[in-house]
Amino acid sequence: MAIEPKTLKGFRDFLPSEMRKRNYVLNVLKKTFESYGFEPLETPVLEYEEILTGKYGEEGDKLMYRFKDNGDRDVAMRYDQTVPLARVMAQYQNDLPLPFKRYQIQNVYRADNTQKGRFREFLQVDVDTVGSSSPLSDSEIIELVYKCFKALQLKIKITINDRKLLKNLETGQIVALDKLDKFGEEKVLEELQKTGLTLDKAKKILADTKTIQASNELSNIKELFEKNNDGSLIFDPTLARGLEYYTGLVFEVNSDTYSAGSLGGGGRYDNLIGMFTNQTIPAVGFSFGFDRIMEAMDELNLFPNELGGADLLVTNTSEKSPKFADELRSKGFRVELYVDEKDLDKQLRYADKKLIPYVLIVGEKLEIKNMKTGEQKEITLENLPNEIKPV
Amino acid sequence: MAIEPKTLKGFRDFLPSEMRKRNYVLNVLKKTFESYGFEPLETPVLEYEEILTGKYGEEGDKLMYRFKDNGDRDVAMRYDQTVPLARVMAQYQNDLPLPFKRYQIQNVYRADNTQKGRFREFLQVDVDTVGSSSPLSDSEIIELVYKCFKALQLKIKITINDRKLLKNLETGQIVALDKLDKFGEEKVLEELQKTGLTLDKAKKILADTKTIQASNELSNIKELFEKNNDGSLIFDPTLARGLEYYTGLVFEVNSDTYSAGSLGGGGRYDNLIGMFTNQTIPAVGFSFGFDRIMEAMDELNLFPNELGGADLLVTNTSEKSPKFADELRSKGFRVELYVDEKDLDKQLRYADKKLIPYVLIVGEKLEIKNMKTGEQKEITLENLPNEIKPV
Repeated sequence: MAIEPKTLKGFRDFLPSEMRKRNYVLNVLKKTFESYGFEPLETPVLEYEEILTGKYGEEGDKLMYRFKDNGDRDVAMRYDQTVPLARVMAQYQNDLPLPFKRYQIQNVYRADNTQKGRFREFLQVDVDTVGSSSPLSDSEIIELVYKCFKALQLKIKITINDRKLLKNLETGQIVALDKLDKFGEEKVLEELQKTGLTLDKAKKILADTKTIQASNELSNIKELFEKNNDGSLIFDPTLARGLEYYTGLVFEVNSDTYSAGSLGGGGRYDNLIGMFTNQTIPAVGFSFGFDRIMEAMDELNLFPNELGGADLLVTNTSEKSPKFADELRSKGFRVELYVDEKDLDKQLRYADKKLIPYVLIVGEKLEIKNMKTGEQKEITLENLPNEIKPV
Repeated sequence: MAIEPKTLKGFRDFLPSEMRKRNYVLNVLKKTFESYGFEPLETPVLEYEEILTGKYGEEGDKLMYRFKDNGDRDVAMRYDQTVPLARVMAQYQNDLPLPFKRYQIQNVYRADNTQKGRFREFLQVDVDTVGSSSPLSDSEIIELVYKCFKALQLKIKITINDRKLLKNLETGQIVALDKLDKFGEEKVLEELQKTGLTLDKAKKILADTKTIQASNELSNIKELFEKNNDGSLIFDPTLARGLEYYTGLVFEVNSDTYSAGSLGGGGRYDNLIGMFTNQTIPAVGFSFGFDRIMEAMDELNLFPNELGGADLLVTNTSEKSPKFADELRSKGFRVELYVDEKDLDKQLRYADKKLIPYVLIVGEKLEIKNMKTGEQKEITLENLPNEIKPV
């Protein structure tokens, strides 16, 4: 019986053209993270179930991939990277001097409704500073995020708030107010009334919230950031970002040029990282919305043109072809050698399909063909780097 | 009740010091793959169970992580990268012109006995050329592998054989002969007798096999390789590498400087990639033994000295510290800014623990401290790149 080649809903293959774009963004981010001394960390995809359950609310437990492994252990798949970070901080306390600045880039798994445009396997890109409660660690995370988007040439605005300013509001009210930026006043008033308020009360809460002044702490962070950067932060007293999670600063990245949602969010969460040791370990972090960033970069045409595979194809038309290919590699070119014994036309069509920009045709003489313009001319190996540049 | 922070047997956390070594090796490999025009591919960790089961023999089905997902689907975790590649080749036939040269670097999952020093989650690093049966594609894969180990400065030898030369032997006999290199003649004769042979017969088979001459095909591949490279290939008629899998060339990488086992193996397998479409799609590939390579590199001290995190720490001892840190980043340094407000001694101890080689002490004047020698002297920001070099 034939087995249909297909993937599970919410799971994706990444073919080379997509992989190259993803790698481009990841390399920019990693390089920026490392320029700030943030260090890489990876944890297993499977954890003992008890490590993960009960940490993400009822919804989390429901959406988590859980099963019994071959040794009858209850295991669960990575659901985010914060609980594993908390486990790591408890498990290797003596190996990780504080503050610990780490980045983590791994897939997480959520059996979510895919109709909402959500994936069940998706990449999380997190940066966190663990073990410091100084405003400088807050402003540094914001600055790092700012630099990342700058390096990607994505124009963004950063809104900030202090979760402590909303402490007099009920959870439902905070959730309602958080929608102001995305859905407008009418929707927020509607949602507030659903929590049991009259229209007048709802209007008053909205108006009151909008007049809240930034806390000293927040002003301090804003000042620190703006002193060292050419951008500015926007205070938004209705910004909430999550519910029980954050304990101080919250911030969110949006772009006026991309409307499908925020490109990431973060803040200070001082009560999570110590969960396995019952300590208070302060932390501040940010999670990049990687799939949205990919979508925005695509829409705004921000990927470099030369993100292709090989710089040139060397035709398999002479015994010397492998040697020539190798010489060009040693000059820094990415060179694909055509390995089949096909006629030249087939080899050119292959380069065309694969968007390889140049073909070196090896015969009695050497010729270089520009696949875009069709121009073809004689060349020497020595002179080739003057004609085309390795990417 | 406190939950003990621990990981599952066979699953590993990778802390920064280990991650940096892994990333070093992976970056060298990826760069080499791409210099040959090999392209990145990624597939999901979960597949429909029917895609994976029955493809790896009884043992594979037993060791595979399988479960029912939240939608009651039978799913299985990635067990290798070859079956997913076969699925991809069937599913996106029109998007992937042949020959398709791809590399894939993802974790695979096997519920194996961890006592054998095996891991249940481990990284596979595979390169394969799909859709060509030319000897040039065989010699190219060997050359690529050769270049990778050369770039890692790992001294290796490559042994080759043609699986077709062993076609008159029974499976048990091939398995026995394959142990010659590792365990010696006595052991092989013992194993051959276990398959039901008399000692005399066993001796004859061993002697006969050792006198087998390389096939024309193999000689052709060897000649192609040796014409273009400074190394040579060793023909070993007892090399088998796996059983039903390979159809022609098989090859294996070993190092005289590392005795714990082969550093990778590969060969031609023309009957696997077409499994989902009942076509014959020729393929040749190699799988790097990543964990063993890491171990060998460690033992042989082949990691660069400067694989640390930040190049320098800027002390948090002045309002100007963030600005100075940022100026140095723009000069290419990886700079960690100390974010807590601790005294200078604490900050120096932190740099020491984290093996950060230099500390920029920011006060009324600027001073640079070499953490290895203890030397400390006045410096200007402009002059700093003359004192220390960014890595």
